[in-house]
Amino acid sequence: MTASADAVPAVVLARVPAGAPTPEDLALVELPRHRLGAGQVRVRVTTLSLDPYQRSTLGGRHLGDAPVGLGDVLPGRSVGEVVESRDPGVAVGRRVLAETGWRAEAVVDGAAVTPVQVPPGVPASAALGALGMPGLMAYAAHVRHLRPTAGATVVIGAATGGVGSVAGQLARLAGARTVGIVGSDEKAALATGPLGYDVAVRRGPSLADELARACPDRIDGYLHLGDQDTLDVVLEQLAVGARVSLAGLMDQYNGGAPTRLRAGAVMAARAEVHGMVVYDHGDLAAEHAQRVGDLLASGALVAPEDRYAGLDRAALAFARLMGGHTVGKVVVDV
Amino acid sequence: MTASADAVPAVVLARVPAGAPTPEDLALVELPRHRLGAGQVRVRVTTLSLDPYQRSTLGGRHLGDAPVGLGDVLPGRSVGEVVESRDPGVAVGRRVLAETGWRAEAVVDGAAVTPVQVPPGVPASAALGALGMPGLMAYAAHVRHLRPTAGATVVIGAATGGVGSVAGQLARLAGARTVGIVGSDEKAALATGPLGYDVAVRRGPSLADELARACPDRIDGYLHLGDQDTLDVVLEQLAVGARVSLAGLMDQYNGGAPTRLRAGAVMAARAEVHGMVVYDHGDLAAEHAQRVGDLLASGALVAPEDRYAGLDRAALAFARLMGGHTVGKVVVDV
Repeated sequence: MTASADAVPAVVLARVPAGAPTPEDLALVELPRHRLGAGQVRVRVTTLSLDPYQRSTLGGRHLGDAPVGLGDVLPGRSVGEVVESRDPGVAVGRRVLAETGWRAEAVVDGAAVTPVQVPPGVPASAALGALGMPGLMAYAAHVRHLRPTAGATVVIGAATGGVGSVAGQLARLAGARTVGIVGSDEKAALATGPLGYDVAVRRGPSLADELARACPDRIDGYLHLGDQDTLDVVLEQLAVGARVSLAGLMDQYNGGAPTRLRAGAVMAARAEVHGMVVYDHGDLAAEHAQRVGDLLASGALVAPEDRYAGLDRAALAFARLMGGHTVGKVVVDV
Repeated sequence: MTASADAVPAVVLARVPAGAPTPEDLALVELPRHRLGAGQVRVRVTTLSLDPYQRSTLGGRHLGDAPVGLGDVLPGRSVGEVVESRDPGVAVGRRVLAETGWRAEAVVDGAAVTPVQVPPGVPASAALGALGMPGLMAYAAHVRHLRPTAGATVVIGAATGGVGSVAGQLARLAGARTVGIVGSDEKAALATGPLGYDVAVRRGPSLADELARACPDRIDGYLHLGDQDTLDVVLEQLAVGARVSLAGLMDQYNGGAPTRLRAGAVMAARAEVHGMVVYDHGDLAAEHAQRVGDLLASGALVAPEDRYAGLDRAALAFARLMGGHTVGKVVVDV
């Protein structure tokens, strides 16, 4: 598709997905370009972030977010460049983070954009991943919920994803033994290779056995990013005093039945279970940026990305993300 | 039944209950009186404690406890008197707490009995209730899980029971607004009368509406002692940052489906959910005995009891307890 001078390519909801979304559920359209009002800026999107929670807004609701109806542009966060400004505080040419939605460019309030801050040598897209919301979620789950000590066993659901890859490395750097749950051989190789997990175990019917072998002293910390079956298996293998952070309900986001936890397993482990919502942990943002930024800059922590080129591939990328077929933080270069 | 000189009345499992136990599931029998071995003592039971967790040992398993098979004496804790001793450290005539099981008298190791310590004016049976395991569970849930602050809204499942009645009063004394869940008008009157709850709400189909009216600012703390339906309703009304202590799974103990928590509700409330197992909180025993003992002695905290006379009424009392028909801590005077 070639955009006309006064049109902006964008991705809208074409059909409410049944289960995991398919590319056909979304459509690339052209929307009119709007003029700036006072205080607004125009952001040309460089890189768009795709995140699992977005699935639950399609025809439904994610926490307080408004549902996305048919024909609505999908919500999303991007790194972009200010190309026009009616906010004296935001100069043209500045590289910013903004809630643009899935658009090639967006008009947003100048007050709502923030400068991209990444250490030298780190790609700007890290501001959407390890240094962005997913990274902050991982950091907050690590320091507030899982709090692993040296020698503890920490299990990470979706071990190679945007959140899990950061959380697993933070746990390892804290001296924990880390076990990553993955869905493919490719992900297992990434997990035990660059991401440094001690063991990778496969989601599915063999998980209970693999996990029992990987965690002979049972599980002290679990970051849940996954499906009901995985949660059921992990809860039965918690150590006494285990800590669980519920950070992502993948199958529920895909329209599945509400995820539930067996209370008897929580009681038997005297476990502490926390609900993780990243918006509550903004007070950790500066500490997160500093510590994870330093780790990224030094190479002590790596941030794998699954990059897709072009807004026309965003729907495919999202279908792959929600189907569990992406590796690392998923971004679309627009 | 009249016990012969060499026989000891005891209650055994006659039939594995289907659902809530009935009196016919248990049988009063006479068992031979045993001689004491070295280091053992004979305890004549004064008062036997009935507790919901005992149900889950009947034909099954409660945490690490051995299952109770057909013909086995039910396990239980009592206040009694040492009537014979081959332990030089335990004098005849001493009033002790012991794991006697449901027997008129029991032979136990002298090392396993502990002196009954209750403040002047407080009945010895309080050592089985507000000053015993149920009271310690309530105290630990209060100080470690619920941690209510002044003005917080705390909801107590089974508000008038052995655990709930103590927890509700501790929350009120900490300045919380307390809401008790009850199953009858009689219990509602006890809850809002002597126990000092601000409001009592009824288990059942009206619970969601009653709770919403009783908790206009939603629920900051919840002590779960109840069934799946109650848990489901409460979880939907949690305030952000709520704390939940899972202390009793009444319907599951009665052989029902495993209790489960909706993960989305935990996440939406950013709740902190804890499994409560009283055995983990023995380090609080001295503090609990001191603080709750003082409150009982001064009358600032009351400890209602549902007393049954005679071991032959224990089966009826237990059926009433597990059917939700008892009020206060259930004890049997033997």
